[in-house]
Amino acid sequence: MRVLVINGPNLNLLGQRETSLYGEQSLDDINQALREIAQQKQVEIDFFQSNHEGVLVDRIQQAQGSVDAFIINAGALTHYSIALLDALKAVQIPFVEVHLTNIYAREDFRHRSLLSPAARGGIFGLGADAYSLALLAICGWVK
Amino acid sequence: MRVLVINGPNLNLLGQRETSLYGEQSLDDINQALREIAQQKQVEIDFFQSNHEGVLVDRIQQAQGSVDAFIINAGALTHYSIALLDALKAVQIPFVEVHLTNIYAREDFRHRSLLSPAARGGIFGLGADAYSLALLAICGWVK
Amino acid sequence: MRVLVINGPNLNLLGQRETSLYGEQSLDDINQALREIAQQKQVEIDFFQSNHEGVLVDRIQQAQGSVDAFIINAGALTHYSIALLDALKAVQIPFVEVHLTNIYAREDFRHRSLLSPAARGGIFGLGADAYSLALLAICGWVK
Amino acid sequence: MRVLVINGPNLNLLGQRETSLYGEQSLDDINQALREIAQQKQVEIDFFQSNHEGVLVDRIQQAQGSVDAFIINAGALTHYSIALLDALKAVQIPFVEVHLTNIYAREDFRHRSLLSPAARGGIFGLGADAYSLALLAICGWVK
Amino acid sequence: MRVLVINGPNLNLLGQRETSLYGEQSLDDINQALREIAQQKQVEIDFFQSNHEGVLVDRIQQAQGSVDAFIINAGALTHYSIALLDALKAVQIPFVEVHLTNIYAREDFRHRSLLSPAARGGIFGLGADAYSLALLAICGWVK
Amino acid sequence: MRVLVINGPNLNLLGQRETSLYGEQSLDDINQALREIAQQKQVEIDFFQSNHEGVLVDRIQQAQGSVDAFIINAGALTHYSIALLDALKAVQIPFVEVHLTNIYAREDFRHRSLLSPAARGGIFGLGADAYSLALLAICGWVK
Amino acid sequence: MRVLVINGPNLNLLGQRETSLYGEQSLDDINQALREIAQQKQVEIDFFQSNHEGVLVDRIQQAQGSVDAFIINAGALTHYSIALLDALKAVQIPFVEVHLTNIYAREDFRHRSLLSPAARGGIFGLGADAYSLALLAICGWVK
Amino acid sequence: MRVLVINGPNLNLLGQRETSLYGEQSLDDINQALREIAQQKQVEIDFFQSNHEGVLVDRIQQAQGSVDAFIINAGALTHYSIALLDALKAVQIPFVEVHLTNIYAREDFRHRSLLSPAARGGIFGLGADAYSLALLAICGWVK
Amino acid sequence: MRVLVINGPNLNLLGQRETSLYGEQSLDDINQALREIAQQKQVEIDFFQSNHEGVLVDRIQQAQGSVDAFIINAGALTHYSIALLDALKAVQIPFVEVHLTNIYAREDFRHRSLLSPAARGGIFGLGADAYSLALLAICGWVK
Amino acid sequence: MRVLVINGPNLNLLGQRETSLYGEQSLDDINQALREIAQQKQVEIDFFQSNHEGVLVDRIQQAQGSVDAFIINAGALTHYSIALLDALKAVQIPFVEVHLTNIYAREDFRHRSLLSPAARGGIFGLGADAYSLALLAICGWVK
Amino acid sequence: MRVLVINGPNLNLLGQRETSLYGEQSLDDINQALREIAQQKQVEIDFFQSNHEGVLVDRIQQAQGSVDAFIINAGALTHYSIALLDALKAVQIPFVEVHLTNIYAREDFRHRSLLSPAARGGIFGLGADAYSLALLAICGWVK
Amino acid sequence: MRVLVINGPNLNLLGQRETSLYGEQSLDDINQALREIAQQKQVEIDFFQSNHEGVLVDRIQQAQGSVDAFIINAGALTHYSIALLDALKAVQIPFVEVHLTNIYAREDFRHRSLLSPAARGGIFGLGADAYSLALLAICGWVK
Repeated sequence: MRVLVINGPNLNLLGQRETSLYGEQSLDDINQALREIAQQKQVEIDFFQSNHEGVLVDRIQQAQGSVDAFIINAGALTHYSIALLDALKAVQIPFVEVHLTNIYAREDFRHRSLLSPAARGGIFGLGADAYSLALLAICGWVK
Repeated sequence: MRVLVINGPNLNLLGQRETSLYGEQSLDDINQALREIAQQKQVEIDFFQSNHEGVLVDRIQQAQGSVDAFIINAGALTHYSIALLDALKAVQIPFVEVHLTNIYAREDFRHRSLLSPAARGGIFGLGADAYSLALLAICGWVK
Repeated sequence: MRVLVINGPNLNLLGQRETSLYGEQSLDDINQALREIAQQKQVEIDFFQSNHEGVLVDRIQQAQGSVDAFIINAGALTHYSIALLDALKAVQIPFVEVHLTNIYAREDFRHRSLLSPAARGGIFGLGADAYSLALLAICGWVK
Repeated sequence: MRVLVINGPNLNLLGQRETSLYGEQSLDDINQALREIAQQKQVEIDFFQSNHEGVLVDRIQQAQGSVDAFIINAGALTHYSIALLDALKAVQIPFVEVHLTNIYAREDFRHRSLLSPAARGGIFGLGADAYSLALLAICGWVK
Repeated sequence: MRVLVINGPNLNLLGQRETSLYGEQSLDDINQALREIAQQKQVEIDFFQSNHEGVLVDRIQQAQGSVDAFIINAGALTHYSIALLDALKAVQIPFVEVHLTNIYAREDFRHRSLLSPAARGGIFGLGADAYSLALLAICGWVK
Repeated sequence: MRVLVINGPNLNLLGQRETSLYGEQSLDDINQALREIAQQKQVEIDFFQSNHEGVLVDRIQQAQGSVDAFIINAGALTHYSIALLDALKAVQIPFVEVHLTNIYAREDFRHRSLLSPAARGGIFGLGADAYSLALLAICGWVK
Repeated sequence: MRVLVINGPNLNLLGQRETSLYGEQSLDDINQALREIAQQKQVEIDFFQSNHEGVLVDRIQQAQGSVDAFIINAGALTHYSIALLDALKAVQIPFVEVHLTNIYAREDFRHRSLLSPAARGGIFGLGADAYSLALLAICGWVK
Repeated sequence: MRVLVINGPNLNLLGQRETSLYGEQSLDDINQALREIAQQKQVEIDFFQSNHEGVLVDRIQQAQGSVDAFIINAGALTHYSIALLDALKAVQIPFVEVHLTNIYAREDFRHRSLLSPAARGGIFGLGADAYSLALLAICGWVK
Repeated sequence: MRVLVINGPNLNLLGQRETSLYGEQSLDDINQALREIAQQKQVEIDFFQSNHEGVLVDRIQQAQGSVDAFIINAGALTHYSIALLDALKAVQIPFVEVHLTNIYAREDFRHRSLLSPAARGGIFGLGADAYSLALLAICGWVK
Repeated sequence: MRVLVINGPNLNLLGQRETSLYGEQSLDDINQALREIAQQKQVEIDFFQSNHEGVLVDRIQQAQGSVDAFIINAGALTHYSIALLDALKAVQIPFVEVHLTNIYAREDFRHRSLLSPAARGGIFGLGADAYSLALLAICGWVK
Repeated sequence: MRVLVINGPNLNLLGQRETSLYGEQSLDDINQALREIAQQKQVEIDFFQSNHEGVLVDRIQQAQGSVDAFIINAGALTHYSIALLDALKAVQIPFVEVHLTNIYAREDFRHRSLLSPAARGGIFGLGADAYSLALLAICGWVK
Repeated sequence: MRVLVINGPNLNLLGQRETSLYGEQSLDDINQALREIAQQKQVEIDFFQSNHEGVLVDRIQQAQGSVDAFIINAGALTHYSIALLDALKAVQIPFVEVHLTNIYAREDFRHRSLLSPAARGGIFGLGADAYSLALLAICGWVK
């Protein structure tokens, strides 16, 4: 089981900005926590972040054959990037969608995720735990 | 930490019906798995299921003082029961919303959850694991 | 062939109230007429009415194994009870939807039936005859 | 009691095409079954089919004085022909609307019938039986 | 100045049906009144009525070179016949749209006229006078 | 028969501005033409114009007992002044709505007239003739 | 004059929860204040609260013959319970709708009351006084 | 406690017109009844009516420092006058919104009040009593 | 391979009217060009045009067994004729939809084609070439 | 270059009310600042404020021939006064639209300006500077 | 005549993934076929694919002076990239829009193309032939 | 005070293309004018343009600590790039939104700016002056 954790635009700023909304942990902190779970569960894990839709699409395409599952927090692209959706559907690698915040308690334009209908499942609004839970869910698939 | 797991209409049928959609596990199987996690994490856990909106509202109201967190799968009521939402807001006990299926990949009228904006967070579409992950998230709160 | 006739909220008042809209016959009159047809067609028939969504859901669930077809007039619940729809889909017993009045000639919120897409078929606006016709249709299934 | 059965566009193809959707019976088969019921119930019955909205409007207008009730399956015109609606309202002959298929389980544009609000009632989704049931309902009017 | 008065579906029934809505005058009465005005104003006038959209389109097309203005009451087709609109735009003969009734005081689907944006102008809700007024307006064009 | 011609905001500028849209005639020209028809038809006629909604409402209220019919071009107020509509309904004096331009061929927000449903009828898009035709229609009422 | 005060879901919690929104008074306090007014005005008064839609429908049905007016605060059910509306229309007992809070200053889904169109009138946003005012209004009916 | 009762367009016609809708009492009758309550409750009361939005805005602005509460029935302006809303918010004097009729049982465009979200509360559909009840509510504030 | 080219309302006027929009070529010119391609590609080709929806439906039905593919420009009917759609689906002959103009650059009501979802494909906005390209596409199917 | 600064309803209250929203400066302060810039740039400037739509329309009409540009903050009328828009279009004097607040960060009904499409340009949300910037822009036109 | 074929996100995966939807041919296969047609028709042809909106915008801008027509399949960007539309409009090079699949038979969000209104024309749903047909259309322009 | 001027997709083409819409000045001309104002006002100024959303997000993120205010014309991204909005909110640097054209007088999809609600203010439709005015506004902040 090889897992790739993909983070979209502005998630590189985690822990520095709007911490009341997004929490105190940096993306590195989150990734470190995931690495520990991965080690414990004996799955391979890798990380990728970009602010560029096209770069994310490229990376998803390249995952074919080398990744078994994605954890993806596409940030703002969640709500309008059909290209990202198409890339995920094209590679047919199962993915869990995560959001640090409760997107349903925020602006109207954050209530619809284009990715959700194609996801194996999703976790929203539980802060940085969302990533760990997603990883645990994925580990459970190999049961 | 005392957790109450609340299941709404038709979830008593889990494992018997539409298993391709809802999975093979019965509600008892799910509850048993939760009991094991609870024991391991040393939290109290209790379970409640009803097909009646009013009975669910009554139960939520009674939880004041005896429950620290809800895991709630309100089933169909998720999408229209403002009474359930009001009960949850009234008792001010934090809750995690769970759905076995990916509600965003189903009929339009299942895409909106009235409960989500008031939830601490939610998990959808990961089958019976959704409950376990929610419990793990709640256990994490006492960190 | 065992048929269960289910009536939802306020249909117990038939014949007493708003008779210009709903007709002069009581629910007992309607049921008696259905009993006669059933006897003649040699099918078993039973009746259930409740003003409680939850009680209706319970009854539908219990029908598994003892009922072959429903005739259902869910009254006002027709238009918002996703729980009722889910119960009907869960038990996978075919049903005919009936309405005494022409719901398409009334208020906007009565124009959409949540149950229709899952029904075998439906009959609206022909008064108490709707039930008899539904029973005849069901009897025809065993042809 | 003189009944005219009106069928709109493409219903002349019944039994030849898309039989999984519309059933195996031809329009002649359906008409023959109706003739038998009519004979038994001692009502006069006649039949008319056209693919032309204007021809249907003409026929409906000519029915004044010679027809007491219509059974009408307007096919696709159900959803947009205000002219047909106006013709039916102009002649003030009561009619029962029928559909072989469950129009509420098909494309969105088939969910609204312009004719329904003006109908005495309607029957949908019970296959060819819809016509027989409609005729029985009409026969019941002379009680 | 040659004027063609075009009437659409069901307007042949004027004076016979729903007289409280459409008035007591027959289409012949209206046409006779128009003939008198035409004679007085020394314009040629002709009349055409059909319940068939296609026949109306054919007639409009044939008017090229022989008609200088239309008075058109397209009846129900007003609200959905883009084909009629296209025919009127194709022949580029100016037209006045008339309606006997106040279409804005009736059902929602009668509030939008597809023809209005292409009309020189329109008259609604003044009964049979609408035609006379339209003819007077057209006669005024030659001033 | 006493007729009051009411013109709303900006109609005092007729003939001076946007003449390609509203025509070359001034409001005085139009009124003079109406005076001549009135004299010929032996009806009393009076005129009122204001850019103030409240002043128009006052004038309509004062018309009770001294006016038998209004010709009203409410200008921009047509589309949002419920107060004007209420005044017209309160005094229960029949009125004909007129518009110089074809409001259905202009901006979306000019397509809906709040006054139309309460009008006896209306005339749009025939330039200054609209007023004369409306007066002729009203004169016809005393037939 | 016999008045029944009906309170819907979660109103049993008044005075205990979200007091900044709903006020400090308990439902008993409100009822006591109403009892005093009733005594003073010499009308009979009774009280009913339930969190169950079906129980409320039952109670409304039973009021026939023993209640002359309802004061009803249906809580969350205000916004989706067509069954409650139907019960109120069926028994044809006049009712005044009350809301403690200003529902038009809250979430969008609280802006529409299904009950309002059938109510004699309503009072919103004046806190516990809403009930007293409603009772005074009803007492005024016997003038 | 000084109260100003503000009435908007067409309310000066109360008791003269559409009495089946608005009741038999004139605005003077209503004001007299309010004067009596005010005297009894020892609050100062004053009255203002205008058909002009601008005049109403001026009057509301002038109320600063001399008025403690408004009772306002803005009539038709309720539904579109953002200027009135802004004036009420600017002076920050609490107000109770009243409507003689049940605006939710009338035309769609009367269902939304721009003023409601800013009101302390409102009373609709109880006829002239609405004003008295509003005054009683305001008197209650000084408790 | 036998191809039938079907043209709907007003396309018989091509080359005579609105040539800036629809081009200079007549329908005969277009058909002649198609005949040449057909000859060259050795496919049979035939042509049909009507302004009547019903006649088009009849012709489509008759194509069963004698036509292998349609090229269809339904003109205005494209946007509302469900009957045409049903005929095309009933005969299950593959078709290519063509439009001379760019329907997406015209009025809103021309942006939706009811036929498109059932088409093998479509070509819009390339003038008379659209037909030739469609024929080439169809010829390619026999590859 | 003669500039007229027009302010609509409630802007006379600037500096007195809701200063956290609208700022501390009075309209006189703003006008004084504009006078200084005008003097410096050698343009004539004049000021007009009214709470009355009709008075504003009158003033705009009178500006013909004596004003070269408007700076207009129509306040609440921005969002519904088609009469104001029509007056501005009628006089064809270019105008810059200003708003002190960020109207796009406020209530939904303030997001649409009817005036914007006809404006030369606009400035929002920069407080009292909006007026000065608008004047500078206008001064730039004479470059 | 120099033609540039532009392909957007995920089209580099053609032939490898979802072949039942997008067909068996790779983008290289398609390009090779186009090269052959170009050679035969003696037009220059070049190819460009990117998953990055910005890179596509850059390429379109650089085409000025060196490209006479685009064939563009913008993939998912078709439905939301206003930037791409703006680039295409800025360079004013005519383009034909192509889609391999029938976008009108897929998800709702694929039914609207932002590019279509600015295109010379478009071809959808004919598989890889769409490109060849587009090239033939463009070659026809030099006639 | 350090100001960064950010321009989005296609703004590098200013002065070359669609000059009737966007004006004759190149982006360099605009920047030069800004440089002069900045020098005069003694603020630091820098410039950035990209056609790539991701590059713009990167640049905004890097501005933390080195920029005090943005002037941003996001071009087409204004209307759909939630990622850009998120970047601007994350860095919490105040910004003024500018548009050369009047976006409210163009296509519907340009009427909504995602950035506006988060902006300090905005300027639209005044051509290249919009940038200078924005800079003046920002300079005013240091007053």
